[in-house]
Amino acid sequence: MSHRVINFYAGPAGLPLEPLKRAQDELLDFAGTGMSVMEISHRAKEYDAVHGEALSLVRELLGLPANFKVLLLQGGAHLSFAMIPLNLLQSGRKADYVLTGNWAEKAFKEAKLVGGDNVRAAASTKDVKFARLPKAGEYAWNSDAAYVHFTSNNTVEGTQFKEFPPTDKPLICDMSSDIMWRPFDVSKFGLIYAGAQKNLGPSGVTVVIIRDDILEMCEAQDLPSYLRFKIHAEKNSLYNTPPCFGVYILRNVLAYNKSIGGLSAIEANNRKKGELLYGCIDRHPGFFKPFVIENADRSFMNVDFFLPTEELTDMFVKEAKKNGMVGLKGYRDIGGIRVSTYNAVTVDNVATLTAFMEDFVKKNG
Amino acid sequence: MSHRVINFYAGPAGLPLEPLKRAQDELLDFAGTGMSVMEISHRAKEYDAVHGEALSLVRELLGLPANFKVLLLQGGAHLSFAMIPLNLLQSGRKADYVLTGNWAEKAFKEAKLVGGDNVRAAASTKDVKFARLPKAGEYAWNSDAAYVHFTSNNTVEGTQFKEFPPTDKPLICDMSSDIMWRPFDVSKFGLIYAGAQKNLGPSGVTVVIIRDDILEMCEAQDLPSYLRFKIHAEKNSLYNTPPCFGVYILRNVLAYNKSIGGLSAIEANNRKKGELLYGCIDRHPGFFKPFVIENADRSFMNVDFFLPTEELTDMFVKEAKKNGMVGLKGYRDIGGIRVSTYNAVTVDNVATLTAFMEDFVKKNG
Repeated sequence: MSHRVINFYAGPAGLPLEPLKRAQDELLDFAGTGMSVMEISHRAKEYDAVHGEALSLVRELLGLPANFKVLLLQGGAHLSFAMIPLNLLQSGRKADYVLTGNWAEKAFKEAKLVGGDNVRAAASTKDVKFARLPKAGEYAWNSDAAYVHFTSNNTVEGTQFKEFPPTDKPLICDMSSDIMWRPFDVSKFGLIYAGAQKNLGPSGVTVVIIRDDILEMCEAQDLPSYLRFKIHAEKNSLYNTPPCFGVYILRNVLAYNKSIGGLSAIEANNRKKGELLYGCIDRHPGFFKPFVIENADRSFMNVDFFLPTEELTDMFVKEAKKNGMVGLKGYRDIGGIRVSTYNAVTVDNVATLTAFMEDFVKKNG
Repeated sequence: MSHRVINFYAGPAGLPLEPLKRAQDELLDFAGTGMSVMEISHRAKEYDAVHGEALSLVRELLGLPANFKVLLLQGGAHLSFAMIPLNLLQSGRKADYVLTGNWAEKAFKEAKLVGGDNVRAAASTKDVKFARLPKAGEYAWNSDAAYVHFTSNNTVEGTQFKEFPPTDKPLICDMSSDIMWRPFDVSKFGLIYAGAQKNLGPSGVTVVIIRDDILEMCEAQDLPSYLRFKIHAEKNSLYNTPPCFGVYILRNVLAYNKSIGGLSAIEANNRKKGELLYGCIDRHPGFFKPFVIENADRSFMNVDFFLPTEELTDMFVKEAKKNGMVGLKGYRDIGGIRVSTYNAVTVDNVATLTAFMEDFVKKNG
């Protein structure tokens, strides 16, 4: 029996045990082939079955209508930051970006490298260090925007959109850190992208979901082929060799997620986790100080808070580690504690943490 | 004990057993962390050790001088096809491409999308279906080329450069299918890139080796960040989340390659494998017809040959599979048989195949 810790890393992050065990069991002999899934041609029928199942499970779990394509790419959110404007901001098209944190700013900066002044900030909460999301009246939309880009969950700051930005334009969303945390209506989205390494699988796989009308806008013929969404869509994400092992783990995780009841069951767990964690924080307002200043904006995926002193923060991280809990140190620009509670973190895991927190307050509060 | 076959796939391809076993053993608990290597932050010291070791092993096995940087990227050779001209063909720079096969043509086509007429073909053997390499007198070099691009091993056609193209320009090489097949002098190379999935590890990791003076030419400030070699070099390939599990397997494979004696030992094995396989083919010129028409150009990594009829070809593939050997079907555009004998294929594996071939000739010749 392997020693396992409780993993609160922000990404790459913990994965459910069952999909990993499945990978371990068949690491040398996958599907009776006598080969690892890493060793099989991406054109072989055994890999093709995994690839197809991963794509189908994304569709099924998200309830995607027929007018969406699913792509499995590489390069993480960073390469998507570039591919989106490269594909969509041809012919002088313009876009609005919603700036709600570190990652949203990166997406904006990369888009501006491609689109220059055609890429505009429609809202920003930088004045409050991104400690809340924009309110309904704070968006300055441009009527000529071809799309509106936003970041559904702000990993660094710990805010999360429960309702999506109020616009009729196609939404393009970096959903890396909260995709599949709950069911949601995808019909307003033109494109969703997510690095797998938070809620879906290992790093090295990017899931891109793109609506047919947005795909049709990607007409750039002079773009290098790897950067063209259309080519990947036409080739069923087998234009070039995919990251086969990553796709395989993604398939394992999604199959597991389906087996435990899909996104409704996952949402119920995530809400319980949030109640436990925020409940504990709010019971001790003199000891745990949340970074996020609007309760409605609090994230169910990343929870940032401060302790009274640096010394107590260090002690918290160290003692948690002694108690089998890792990954709690806050992001470098913010400090304090960050608890990342992605889908693979269980209600029990969070209960263990909150019991530790209560105990920590008792001893040090 | 797992059932294992002899794997002659062209890529993704077989890996040595030891690195895979190591991965299997610690898949749920890596380096005493209580986590899979897939589940650890790429900023954690345990991952950093793997990342650093992978980079060091590339340096050590290839004997890289201090003026080369090693990068671990994503997107495979296809994304490198684009990144090279995007980074290097700024300011009206020009380049010469050597066309020796399917993959070399792809690299050329992608470069032309970026550089247009500034990207020229300096040689091509397409008139003989790429069944040989250009001879010394057949190169039409342009004196204004900033670099010369070539493909060291032509996976589809089965040719391989033993001596590199005769030019004083910096060589840029797609070495995806024969990197580390033997020791070689890297000093003439400005940039080498290789998708890992043939000789190095799983798909989803691209190794890029870049000389400092070539890196200095990459001044494009307006390129999206993920596409800039310079940013990856400055950030030690941790600009964004790397494909951690792929890097880990790469590390395991390279550590194993070092343990068995490094590239000299690997070359000795590869030469024995070639002698066995080409020896068998040449003993039966009426039965096995090689695709490559110049013996000096024959590849030690991919061996293409035809049998007298389609029926015999199908029978060969089927009977080989019954005998535990897979991946022998020829590439779709060429047909026949392709035997890929990358580093992980042992001399014994090839001896098993040639014994089967001798037997096959006896029964059907």
